[in-house]
Amino acid sequence: MNGAQSLIRTLVDSGVDVCFMNPGTSEMHFVAALDDVPEMRGVLALFEGVATGAADGFARMTSRPASVLLHLGPGLGNGIANLHNARRARTPLVNIVGDHAVDHLMLDAPLTSDIDALARTFSCWVHTSRASVDVAGDAANAVAAALSPPGQVATLILPADVSWGEANGPARAVAPSAATLPAESTIGELTRLLVGTKPASVAILLAGSACRVPELEAAARIAQRAAAKVLAETFPTRIERGAGRPPLERLAYLADFAGMQLDGVQHLILVGSAPPVSFFGYPGKDGRLTPQGCEVHVLTPPEGNHAGALEALADALGAPPDGFGVAELALPELPTGELSANTVCQAIGALMPEGAIVSDEGNTAGIYLTGYTAGAPPHDWLCLTGGAIGQGMPVATGAAIACPDRRVINIEADGSAMYTISSLWTQAREGLDVTTVILNNGSYNVLNMELDRVGAEKPGPLAKAMLDISGPRLDFASIAKGMGVPATRATTTDEFVAQLRASLGQDGPSLVEAMIPPGF
Amino acid sequence: MNGAQSLIRTLVDSGVDVCFMNPGTSEMHFVAALDDVPEMRGVLALFEGVATGAADGFARMTSRPASVLLHLGPGLGNGIANLHNARRARTPLVNIVGDHAVDHLMLDAPLTSDIDALARTFSCWVHTSRASVDVAGDAANAVAAALSPPGQVATLILPADVSWGEANGPARAVAPSAATLPAESTIGELTRLLVGTKPASVAILLAGSACRVPELEAAARIAQRAAAKVLAETFPTRIERGAGRPPLERLAYLADFAGMQLDGVQHLILVGSAPPVSFFGYPGKDGRLTPQGCEVHVLTPPEGNHAGALEALADALGAPPDGFGVAELALPELPTGELSANTVCQAIGALMPEGAIVSDEGNTAGIYLTGYTAGAPPHDWLCLTGGAIGQGMPVATGAAIACPDRRVINIEADGSAMYTISSLWTQAREGLDVTTVILNNGSYNVLNMELDRVGAEKPGPLAKAMLDISGPRLDFASIAKGMGVPATRATTTDEFVAQLRASLGQDGPSLVEAMIPPGF
Repeated sequence: MNGAQSLIRTLVDSGVDVCFMNPGTSEMHFVAALDDVPEMRGVLALFEGVATGAADGFARMTSRPASVLLHLGPGLGNGIANLHNARRARTPLVNIVGDHAVDHLMLDAPLTSDIDALARTFSCWVHTSRASVDVAGDAANAVAAALSPPGQVATLILPADVSWGEANGPARAVAPSAATLPAESTIGELTRLLVGTKPASVAILLAGSACRVPELEAAARIAQRAAAKVLAETFPTRIERGAGRPPLERLAYLADFAGMQLDGVQHLILVGSAPPVSFFGYPGKDGRLTPQGCEVHVLTPPEGNHAGALEALADALGAPPDGFGVAELALPELPTGELSANTVCQAIGALMPEGAIVSDEGNTAGIYLTGYTAGAPPHDWLCLTGGAIGQGMPVATGAAIACPDRRVINIEADGSAMYTISSLWTQAREGLDVTTVILNNGSYNVLNMELDRVGAEKPGPLAKAMLDISGPRLDFASIAKGMGVPATRATTTDEFVAQLRASLGQDGPSLVEAMIPPGF
Repeated sequence: MNGAQSLIRTLVDSGVDVCFMNPGTSEMHFVAALDDVPEMRGVLALFEGVATGAADGFARMTSRPASVLLHLGPGLGNGIANLHNARRARTPLVNIVGDHAVDHLMLDAPLTSDIDALARTFSCWVHTSRASVDVAGDAANAVAAALSPPGQVATLILPADVSWGEANGPARAVAPSAATLPAESTIGELTRLLVGTKPASVAILLAGSACRVPELEAAARIAQRAAAKVLAETFPTRIERGAGRPPLERLAYLADFAGMQLDGVQHLILVGSAPPVSFFGYPGKDGRLTPQGCEVHVLTPPEGNHAGALEALADALGAPPDGFGVAELALPELPTGELSANTVCQAIGALMPEGAIVSDEGNTAGIYLTGYTAGAPPHDWLCLTGGAIGQGMPVATGAAIACPDRRVINIEADGSAMYTISSLWTQAREGLDVTTVILNNGSYNVLNMELDRVGAEKPGPLAKAMLDISGPRLDFASIAKGMGVPATRATTTDEFVAQLRASLGQDGPSLVEAMIPPGF
């Protein structure tokens, strides 16, 4: 058994049985070992950012890591943007990066670079395997690191000779650390706070993995008992929402609106979150969103046991186990007329099937989605956690691998789509049930908005041209067909409704391109 | 005048008048300033790797840097693979990366990451502008650093508030350091060596910028006088070649063949090169290609004046100023019959116009190109310098911006094309005369070869599936049309010849997809 074989066997024994990959020469022994450990499913991507984003999407839906296999420093570079998003999503992920054989590294061959330094910029755990007999143990440690709360990116650097050399066999799985509950004194203090303050002056801010049903229900119990407000960070990892679940209001992306949401809050209780800040800084504006004079309390840090802590607090408050508000099943009417961002979102709300997984990178054109889907059948919502665009299509791909019995709907802005467009090919290759909706408005619309907000004076034609992607107008239906994904283009709302319905009813991936005007 | 305006004005005054960009919110003041300094040409890319690769291609053809504008750490991440290639190409390049405003950085907003650490992994010069009044001077220093021999990637990190704050105006251009000549004693020693050794036991290895006409002619004079052999590194930055120029043999990619080329060499004279090494390490094989017992001599280090040094050596040898061998104009016949990698390359050799710029990322399917084009009219050849695939299309884009009066031919393997495919959109937007030839064999063919070479035993079906990109088969003609580039697909040699001829005669970009079998 060589190093690569012992590595893959250890991953599988540790519960990691999918590897999203874009390998090169230095990873050939890993690839060859796939036939020796057929329990490991290799999923090929044509670009590394697809592989890393897919691993993120997979773990968001399964709460267990996938592995990724990348080729040297440049391959890792191509994967960084979505590893950044995974880090911000607190996703467990085992990122394996091949390197030159140790003897070869010192020769500074053309593909040599400092992989360790690159990996440290977004990994919480980085280790280079030094010998074939070590790699199995290193892999077990990598999985444990990835799974340690709140979940993190663990990067294992794998020199080629460590793969090809003789190993001793697989290593036993290593137990990750456990999420901890807050001290009883914390629960006591917060109970006194919630009992003693006036309604609506307390907000509970949920983040990370705290936007799922157990946390949402416990938070709803607390909110009902103490008239506190429940909010979520702007772009949570995964929200369980829809009919029968407590509705969740997210902090707005624009600081001005977030400020309104937090206005009057005198006590902010953090559940897995840092104090809220705006996405970007703007001239003359404070980036901190916590209102002046508001006291900040930590129920759980990111690595805490959010559900346990919220339930303990709800129980201490004597909150009843039910009776809190949940979303009613309420679907919007099917829209008609001119096609716009609004009618696209309305149609999605009207047609979304139960159990759908939404990978949301709709950006400006997707702002109506949250409202139109609030009363849809129960579903999951996956957000652009780290703000690095090009995440939606890969995350949709990984979510579909994770949940083959569910429909994945990827709401995708045209600009964002072009970073990781070859996700479509992987979806076709694997036969994944992904419906991609492209919001084609021919514009980096969010930047038109930001250009005003940052205070840039009177933008001229040269500046505006850099935000305009309408010449030539991208034809996503043609691009998708070129990657083996059936696709249609809609220019009216009726066409869009018919095409979306067809796509949702069809096995395998398909794409619907909605031609909408720029602006809101 | 704000910081961004002073920065762009300084770049233009320093000779940097093109900026390949994919900006975001933190770069909006830079974008807004484009209208204040219209001499700066902004070229939009839909993906950062296109921008960095295009800047590389531009500088290879002009010997002066372009600038790049990227958005924060993830944007830089997406640009890294081609910055790696640019570093290996020793390309002068000014890489500007926006960051959060300094006050905002400490808040750890979602898009925050350690840009400095990321940039250091492939930049020779990294600096963060700390104040708006400093940024003009920082920009002038960045350009000088980029231009200092042999040429390098200089990264300037630009916090948003440094862009928007008040500056004092532009800074004067800073002179880069000059390339140095070798000591007279070095010329003397090498002269004695070349006079005293037996023919064919000396090889001159050219690298970096030493593959252009002045260096090639001086090397040819030396070779003729002393019967030395002239070789180039495997993937030079830019080769001036074709009829009327000294032919140049490149070291083979495969170490076994390179070993044959160097067999019997007892003295190796390096011109801008390190001692040659194989691209990858293999079990039981030495990665160093210098033959046992061969003495290595340095005529010029990478930062040296290669032309001056070679001419001094030729003069010292008393080599006549002409009479050395040059390639004759000799075109292959137009091929016919079944379409294959061989007939594609033959057709390109037969039809390549004078002054063509070839961006070569044909990989395995392109191996016949060098032979078929050796006697073509004078042209430039741009190689995959750093081995990070996804370079060919962006480099072609930048070369076309640099040389609007010349035809760019991008020979592109299907696998490599998919990393930076949106280059086509930028080519369409800018109306660039680029002919892209896609070698569509449905395979990561080089990896099939490497899988054998690394000694992986009997690869099974799961391993082979990871190197097979034929299901679904990519349809590049459809993808290209989706990005606004006219495209055709050829399945016979006659079709390919007709389509290539049409593309070469057509203004603006177009793509010809050659459907060839996998293998050689």
